[in-house]
Amino acid sequence: MYENRIVTLTSDFGLSDVYVGVMKGAIAQINPTLTVVDLTHEIPPQNLTAARFCLMNAYPYFPKGTVHIAVVDPGVGSSRRAIAVKFAAGFLVGPDNGLFSGILSSPGVSPSLPEIAAVELTNPDYWRTTEPSSTFHGRDIFAPVGAHLASGVPLEQLGDAIDPASVVQLPIPECSQTEAGITGCIQYIDRFGNLITNIPGTFVQGKIWSVVVGFRLPSCQTYSDSPTGEAIALIGSHGWVEIAVNGGNAQSQLQLDWGDEVLLHLD
Amino acid sequence: MYENRIVTLTSDFGLSDVYVGVMKGAIAQINPTLTVVDLTHEIPPQNLTAARFCLMNAYPYFPKGTVHIAVVDPGVGSSRRAIAVKFAAGFLVGPDNGLFSGILSSPGVSPSLPEIAAVELTNPDYWRTTEPSSTFHGRDIFAPVGAHLASGVPLEQLGDAIDPASVVQLPIPECSQTEAGITGCIQYIDRFGNLITNIPGTFVQGKIWSVVVGFRLPSCQTYSDSPTGEAIALIGSHGWVEIAVNGGNAQSQLQLDWGDEVLLHLD
Amino acid sequence: MYENRIVTLTSDFGLSDVYVGVMKGAIAQINPTLTVVDLTHEIPPQNLTAARFCLMNAYPYFPKGTVHIAVVDPGVGSSRRAIAVKFAAGFLVGPDNGLFSGILSSPGVSPSLPEIAAVELTNPDYWRTTEPSSTFHGRDIFAPVGAHLASGVPLEQLGDAIDPASVVQLPIPECSQTEAGITGCIQYIDRFGNLITNIPGTFVQGKIWSVVVGFRLPSCQTYSDSPTGEAIALIGSHGWVEIAVNGGNAQSQLQLDWGDEVLLHLD
Repeated sequence: MYENRIVTLTSDFGLSDVYVGVMKGAIAQINPTLTVVDLTHEIPPQNLTAARFCLMNAYPYFPKGTVHIAVVDPGVGSSRRAIAVKFAAGFLVGPDNGLFSGILSSPGVSPSLPEIAAVELTNPDYWRTTEPSSTFHGRDIFAPVGAHLASGVPLEQLGDAIDPASVVQLPIPECSQTEAGITGCIQYIDRFGNLITNIPGTFVQGKIWSVVVGFRLPSCQTYSDSPTGEAIALIGSHGWVEIAVNGGNAQSQLQLDWGDEVLLHLD
Repeated sequence: MYENRIVTLTSDFGLSDVYVGVMKGAIAQINPTLTVVDLTHEIPPQNLTAARFCLMNAYPYFPKGTVHIAVVDPGVGSSRRAIAVKFAAGFLVGPDNGLFSGILSSPGVSPSLPEIAAVELTNPDYWRTTEPSSTFHGRDIFAPVGAHLASGVPLEQLGDAIDPASVVQLPIPECSQTEAGITGCIQYIDRFGNLITNIPGTFVQGKIWSVVVGFRLPSCQTYSDSPTGEAIALIGSHGWVEIAVNGGNAQSQLQLDWGDEVLLHLD
Repeated sequence: MYENRIVTLTSDFGLSDVYVGVMKGAIAQINPTLTVVDLTHEIPPQNLTAARFCLMNAYPYFPKGTVHIAVVDPGVGSSRRAIAVKFAAGFLVGPDNGLFSGILSSPGVSPSLPEIAAVELTNPDYWRTTEPSSTFHGRDIFAPVGAHLASGVPLEQLGDAIDPASVVQLPIPECSQTEAGITGCIQYIDRFGNLITNIPGTFVQGKIWSVVVGFRLPSCQTYSDSPTGEAIALIGSHGWVEIAVNGGNAQSQLQLDWGDEVLLHLD
């Protein structure tokens, strides 16, 4: 009975302006009983890779039927498509620029599954206005469409069906297995300075392993397994191999940045 | 049936302390079924002009009957009045220091309309305590009063009626038409570094125009109409003429600041 | 009928990652009708003293039965206990590291009261998974347990009863009465730069007093009682003696920091 009642918002709008509040107003104008949850609005401006990472790692923790609205939209007002996608876990609404390609390539999810469907948002009946602004589709299209979806409007009514396989894929680095070990890179850095690699934890689970970034970092179960101030590697809560410093900031201590290469050694 | 169920909060409290959470607690103590939406709490400390701009641009996107509580309150504990205002779109609650003067001079809104009414908040029955603190009326007066209004308490019960025309006006710059074009200024800068002028978009809609800030910026429909890194002018999503850089930060690139003059040229 | 419906969250996760959003998802998976209120997520990383202060000063403003979940957890994955506490005002859920010791020593609250009870969270039936991650108990244990508590699950079912007096106390400075006056320290600094001491306002209420920090600061009722830019002392809205600058930032103007000593003089 609770299905389709949660709407999440992800954006690079920050919280210092009223853009996020205005999207919530646009949702409340359609259905004030929906529960809106912020994933984050501090995506670095126009950083699709970071947004893709955040969405991919957050969606499994929401109830079935949740509607995820994401607005990191450098092409707003251009010819990029506005889309909505239905999949087993819920719905995705936003610009067709790769934001959702992490979710759509997650374990158990694929554009070729029978339960998946996608539309281009071409039906203005479900927009806030038939003349949306050229610069804020979050307010004028995505938030209203998401609110209608969460209120039970069928996906098909929102626009023309498109092939789910045509949804834009973001080209992201993949890790590769070599003789020396697994070569990957840092795909995300969190507020604690933890360095999250693109190496899945399943590659190392139950094995003896270490990470080399100039020097060798031992693997641990949790932060407090190592002395304060010491850099370690572990499988993070999101399931990726992560480099951290117990009680410190790995990014500044190790002087590593987004995209930097990481070598993982299996004993 | 949904009327009066949404309460918005605007303040300069930031999110690093518990001030905002405590206001939400004070609201929940009166009616935990209300939906509270943050407009923003990152108004620069005591910046009434920014708060006035944010409220004015956000209120049209909320359901009829929404209660907007705003607490940017440099005069808290002094003799400045605490007020509530009823108007066609909903209710306003906060200190009488000009915060609401943008909304009250918006198109279609005026203190002289018959549907408008205002009270000074003199009835402690609707406060959290009859002995409010001298420094946090947001918690002790405004949040409780807003929660009562959103729960159906009539405006008149909250205190003594005052003339809506007596509500404090914030002196703000107006743009002026000259032979050279329209002279205005930058009234707000958002997190992307977009420079929002005080020139209404309606002044230029359908015309050929450009903006001069040292050099000439062409007008566009949307950010992506120009090459990355190039400064342009456009009508922003809020309806004001805005200066932006596609994929960049206009404030830092153009070295312009709050209040700086802008000349708009009509061909 | 509204009892147990509000859940608050306090953490040092910040808002730039999805950690907070994911906790809200984990709550919604159990009960999407709960109202979740953020106290703050900007606790300085691993600063238990700041978190203790925030919780202690916020809890009185929430409805009876509110569940407060707090996750500042440097020892996550180690042998530190995970606990839940029931007391007159509601419930506390989090790591047993002193976070709640401010609340539990507040006026009218004590571990020895008959209405208080505590459990160690040893029953995985109320966790998100029987195999929680080693690094994110907020998502896997505390948020789910808090959601169950707020939905009516009795405390006793969550794990083994423990002695409330065994809950970890955070060693915090206390102020002391001397011939020269009251010696205290700065226990918290808010976003405005207000310096909040550990001297209760009740010690000075109705008396003539001043604070000495190198030079003497007069006491006032509210910020605007003094000229703009002048440092003063007052009883803050939280009930502690506070040093502030009207329209300015006391921390930067007085060059004082967390823990610095403060002398209060009673005439």
